[in-house]
Amino acid sequence: MSKGTVVLAYSGGLDTSCILVWLKEQGYDVITFLANIGQDEDFEAARKKAESLGAKKVFIEDLRAEFVENFIWPAAQANAVYEDRYLLGTAIARPCIARRQVEIARKEGAQFVSHGATGKGNDQIRFELTCYALYPEVKIIAPWRIPEFYSRFHGRTGLMEYAQNHAPADLYLMTKNPEDSPNDPDVLEIEFSHGVPVKVTNVKEGKSKDSPLDIFSYLNEIGGKHGVGRTDIVENRAIGMKSRGIYETPGTTILLSAHLDIETFTMDKEVRQIKRGLDIKFAEFVYNGFWYSPECEFLRHCIAMSQVNVEGKVQLSIFKGQVYILGRESPKSLYNEELVSMDVLGDYDPCDASGFIRISAVRLREHHRLQGYHGAKQ
Amino acid sequence: MSKGTVVLAYSGGLDTSCILVWLKEQGYDVITFLANIGQDEDFEAARKKAESLGAKKVFIEDLRAEFVENFIWPAAQANAVYEDRYLLGTAIARPCIARRQVEIARKEGAQFVSHGATGKGNDQIRFELTCYALYPEVKIIAPWRIPEFYSRFHGRTGLMEYAQNHAPADLYLMTKNPEDSPNDPDVLEIEFSHGVPVKVTNVKEGKSKDSPLDIFSYLNEIGGKHGVGRTDIVENRAIGMKSRGIYETPGTTILLSAHLDIETFTMDKEVRQIKRGLDIKFAEFVYNGFWYSPECEFLRHCIAMSQVNVEGKVQLSIFKGQVYILGRESPKSLYNEELVSMDVLGDYDPCDASGFIRISAVRLREHHRLQGYHGAKQ
Amino acid sequence: MSKGTVVLAYSGGLDTSCILVWLKEQGYDVITFLANIGQDEDFEAARKKAESLGAKKVFIEDLRAEFVENFIWPAAQANAVYEDRYLLGTAIARPCIARRQVEIARKEGAQFVSHGATGKGNDQIRFELTCYALYPEVKIIAPWRIPEFYSRFHGRTGLMEYAQNHAPADLYLMTKNPEDSPNDPDVLEIEFSHGVPVKVTNVKEGKSKDSPLDIFSYLNEIGGKHGVGRTDIVENRAIGMKSRGIYETPGTTILLSAHLDIETFTMDKEVRQIKRGLDIKFAEFVYNGFWYSPECEFLRHCIAMSQVNVEGKVQLSIFKGQVYILGRESPKSLYNEELVSMDVLGDYDPCDASGFIRISAVRLREHHRLQGYHGAKQ
Amino acid sequence: MSKGTVVLAYSGGLDTSCILVWLKEQGYDVITFLANIGQDEDFEAARKKAESLGAKKVFIEDLRAEFVENFIWPAAQANAVYEDRYLLGTAIARPCIARRQVEIARKEGAQFVSHGATGKGNDQIRFELTCYALYPEVKIIAPWRIPEFYSRFHGRTGLMEYAQNHAPADLYLMTKNPEDSPNDPDVLEIEFSHGVPVKVTNVKEGKSKDSPLDIFSYLNEIGGKHGVGRTDIVENRAIGMKSRGIYETPGTTILLSAHLDIETFTMDKEVRQIKRGLDIKFAEFVYNGFWYSPECEFLRHCIAMSQVNVEGKVQLSIFKGQVYILGRESPKSLYNEELVSMDVLGDYDPCDASGFIRISAVRLREHHRLQGYHGAKQ
Repeated sequence: MSKGTVVLAYSGGLDTSCILVWLKEQGYDVITFLANIGQDEDFEAARKKAESLGAKKVFIEDLRAEFVENFIWPAAQANAVYEDRYLLGTAIARPCIARRQVEIARKEGAQFVSHGATGKGNDQIRFELTCYALYPEVKIIAPWRIPEFYSRFHGRTGLMEYAQNHAPADLYLMTKNPEDSPNDPDVLEIEFSHGVPVKVTNVKEGKSKDSPLDIFSYLNEIGGKHGVGRTDIVENRAIGMKSRGIYETPGTTILLSAHLDIETFTMDKEVRQIKRGLDIKFAEFVYNGFWYSPECEFLRHCIAMSQVNVEGKVQLSIFKGQVYILGRESPKSLYNEELVSMDVLGDYDPCDASGFIRISAVRLREHHRLQGYHGAKQ
Repeated sequence: MSKGTVVLAYSGGLDTSCILVWLKEQGYDVITFLANIGQDEDFEAARKKAESLGAKKVFIEDLRAEFVENFIWPAAQANAVYEDRYLLGTAIARPCIARRQVEIARKEGAQFVSHGATGKGNDQIRFELTCYALYPEVKIIAPWRIPEFYSRFHGRTGLMEYAQNHAPADLYLMTKNPEDSPNDPDVLEIEFSHGVPVKVTNVKEGKSKDSPLDIFSYLNEIGGKHGVGRTDIVENRAIGMKSRGIYETPGTTILLSAHLDIETFTMDKEVRQIKRGLDIKFAEFVYNGFWYSPECEFLRHCIAMSQVNVEGKVQLSIFKGQVYILGRESPKSLYNEELVSMDVLGDYDPCDASGFIRISAVRLREHHRLQGYHGAKQ
Repeated sequence: MSKGTVVLAYSGGLDTSCILVWLKEQGYDVITFLANIGQDEDFEAARKKAESLGAKKVFIEDLRAEFVENFIWPAAQANAVYEDRYLLGTAIARPCIARRQVEIARKEGAQFVSHGATGKGNDQIRFELTCYALYPEVKIIAPWRIPEFYSRFHGRTGLMEYAQNHAPADLYLMTKNPEDSPNDPDVLEIEFSHGVPVKVTNVKEGKSKDSPLDIFSYLNEIGGKHGVGRTDIVENRAIGMKSRGIYETPGTTILLSAHLDIETFTMDKEVRQIKRGLDIKFAEFVYNGFWYSPECEFLRHCIAMSQVNVEGKVQLSIFKGQVYILGRESPKSLYNEELVSMDVLGDYDPCDASGFIRISAVRLREHHRLQGYHGAKQ
Repeated sequence: MSKGTVVLAYSGGLDTSCILVWLKEQGYDVITFLANIGQDEDFEAARKKAESLGAKKVFIEDLRAEFVENFIWPAAQANAVYEDRYLLGTAIARPCIARRQVEIARKEGAQFVSHGATGKGNDQIRFELTCYALYPEVKIIAPWRIPEFYSRFHGRTGLMEYAQNHAPADLYLMTKNPEDSPNDPDVLEIEFSHGVPVKVTNVKEGKSKDSPLDIFSYLNEIGGKHGVGRTDIVENRAIGMKSRGIYETPGTTILLSAHLDIETFTMDKEVRQIKRGLDIKFAEFVYNGFWYSPECEFLRHCIAMSQVNVEGKVQLSIFKGQVYILGRESPKSLYNEELVSMDVLGDYDPCDASGFIRISAVRLREHHRLQGYHGAKQ
């Protein structure tokens, strides 16, 4: 008799194939779920493999458009960067995948979900917090945290892990080595509305894209071609330990540059300063697995509200691993060439600056004066 | 009869030469002060010019070492970046120069100081707040805010301003165009102690530098050679208006990358998160002219305290406008290869992660459950 | 010939009466505006006085309901407290008054507005920033900053100021001395919806109020009767100097207690932590005069969004200057008696806490271990 | 044969007595440790009880002075309040007790420690994080999280818990009901140095205390006599659930009022704003059990640094549950009566305020102007 049904996040690879077989051994019916979020994968081969290994049902779903619109775009509005350097690839893919996985679990009447994330990493947390948030009663089977499983498969993984950590060159799938990248820059114009790109144009080629998925894919393509967005960092995992990460985020890197630029151009100084604090918190929460949480929901709303006037066009040159801003224009610009020009005084009286500075100095002068302290009483 | 003595921050250029003459016309004795903080300048020519225009005394002083050690190094410890993009060149040069200027004023018994900064910019504020903070009784003459002066010299400046804003190519003095930069990277190793560089080595050439000034000059040289650190941004001035800035900060850009890396490698996660908040505030205060203020003093102390264990070596490749981290090592590293490895469990029990996640989810599950709200009473 | 029309914020007192006369002497037509925001004032007497002193028109308007709904309520949602102790009375009255004043100015075609706030205080800033924000072209006449005016009236004000600062007992107009207050507490029940009170009931007397103005007036009355909300503080003015303030905010003090309580009861922990950061910023901006600013607008929107589920009832006892929370209830409560009870385990597995704690300790144990540092390389 | 030695945090009560017996049943040698941190307890009776139940050794230690100096004082410097209302009693007692407990464990060669904290509360976390931080190899036995234990003793505890939650009146051990408190205030003068009290004087009685322990005990006594510091709140536990807490913190409440006052009087505005952010973080970390952590260590250093000039005397009246500030004086005061007075202009030119305000308004006027947006290009 079956112990129940498990929906397994299946990749088609060795790890989750082992898990599939093992779950069946343990007496579960297994439904596999494989999400297409843009990775390079032979989905039909994966389907056949899952079926041949005894999956009761196989779901393969194209979440690419949803991933871009509902996950990458809000992260772009938030200039989401973890610890100043990591541009949050997997961290936002996990909740997208897990959300669909629990939908399938509910629909198929499965009480269990399972995944192949390891027991020291971030992905287990991102995966499971999403599941608990959206399907509180769900039971989670995490084989890499179950002694019978991991003691059996341990050595092999250790080997793979080792390989991964000691052969970083192979890790770059999307980006060219900047040294081998073209000697001619590509020049892009990205058009924003409400803080998200609505069109990207290759200025020299005249080519343009205007659906979210096409735009993002194109940014990845151009970024990849020029070796943009490779990083080798040490980061602090949710679970408290430092780990080394080698990432490539070509499209997101271009997007971040462009969004920062158009945002500063169109957003009030103080609003942006507040928003920046929210951005930093948002990236931390997302990194730590809390995409689906009251706090991230709240932050997404606040951040979205700040983007109402973030519209306009940014021109960028992409070259040898770098993104250069060439210029920007916007109907909602707060940049006022006349106001800032030395040529035109208009309404601005430079004498006001003297008052401004002297008032700003009141506190500093007091501080200095009181270094030779005296008494006071109130 | 003299109205008193003015110490004028003199650049040798047309603007401050006009101011020198004008101040004398107004009846002041003028002492000029020209600080060498590393700019490309013919200091002897400037001395002669000042003398020929009637300066009572001429001070020309080499502040380069002091600038690097007491201003650039603390800013590096703070990863100082304003509004995510501006690496604070002039903002930290101003207090360095003005500090010396008021020392001269005190020593020479001058009640006045003067400068050529314009009436809409940031530099007037940085200059004057430093003066008031360190010499509270000083009187400041800012000709570009005095109608008789600016109405007389206005047109000319407008012209120059215009030229500046519309001919950005000429603005780059330190950095090569990345397109024209070498096709071979330079590989540097920067050694840190207490969060500041103590040695830089060109790994291929075997060449190294170990005094602060030599290190920073060398970073500027190598960065400049490879076109590192050019930016074209719109920023929010202290005075509330947006302006466009085109900057080149080759050495600081390399330094920021390296410092971020060694800091994350050696600093506890939560300490770094707190420090990051302090860093952001520090950069804002400094940008706005408050280097000499109780708050910046406090922040510098806190930040310096956080750097006690920030030591070790970072290897970087500098190429075509980019800085790539190649690796890092440190005797104070908090990176623990064993702890993070899937291969070794050691003291780490993966089952703990299940508990961690489930407890983290308590709040999320409650939130979900209570969407179909019910009453409660306490 | 008239120099133009000025709308003067008129109080009926000596100061603004002098200003009225002086403005006329200077050749202006003067319209007076007196706002009723709940102060104790003989408005008809003030009208006659203004007319007799030559006001061209006299506006007296009841802004009480607007003040409560559009200013006090949003501040209550934000738990607005400046520097941990000042509950922002005048700071939120000023923008309310000035907003109406510039409306009158526009309607009456007046290019000028004027007020009686002094040249070292906060109110001049709050008043004028509101005017500039809502009527950018307006010209402001601030007599207490005009040498001809203040040198003439100076001594008298000094005297009054002195009196004010040295006779604090007279300053309490709304609150009884707690020592003389009733020996029986009043027990109130305040009902909230969307974070603002919609009803207050005196539980013993069975009396209740349900319009915003009535609710707030009643809280002031009951608070005043029991001596609630007196404070004697030193605060930091916008303009950089410390000043002593003696305040009484009976209604706001009760409201803050009650709102904090119902908010914590119904709002997610992490959302509240984010909101608290926004609250602190909001109070600072408002204190400094920026009620009408992009940043305060943004914060008000974010804060209002956080209040959607802040509903329920709080019972409080008001006694001898204190506010005691007796209990709270809410249909949106996140308090779950079962979950928190030791009696019921339900879904909660205490073993999870072991994992939670051990994972939380990973970082701490590493930190300890690495005090006897070793090298690491990555 | 013994399974090893456990050091048990023993209270003398029923719970930890059961644990003592149960640990012995399980085959451990048990050493009990009872810390005196000022609670009302018959320590000799507890010693006898522990011995009679079979403790191998009994440690009873007076940690009161250490608790005040090393835990309460730093918390006072930090104005430590969790979620705006909880003044952190137990949260700072736990690390004090656990620190000594692991010292004993090390000294006695015990590999185990144990405690009676329940499996849903905060104290288990505070206790265990301290143990792991200071004795990383320690093994912790938490019986209330071990099924065999809690299923056996469950009902009884549930009952006690229930009693506690439904009979709050009995919970107040230190404070009188304000309604029954004296009709005459006590007036205290607290003298601070480096942000901690060095003397408290009862002004009417002329009595004074000057050792940390005596000062804090006296504040508790006077606060208790007047019913100061009772609160009934709902708070968010570390573990994510909301719980109701009824607290009494008489001494800490007086201390917080006095410290806030002298701090604002002597600390620069902007420094205090930064410090306030640190204070809030500190209280959160401590509440969540991280007293011994790199982040709390860092924060304590920063906060201590901010207290260098926090010295002077505060006079307070304590009456019917309230603390009223009567006045303050300090040799390091930044309050400048002349500067703030309308009577004296001295160096202050009111015209500067016009400039200050107009410059502050530049951004606001631009914002308004651009509501009728136009294009711009840069």
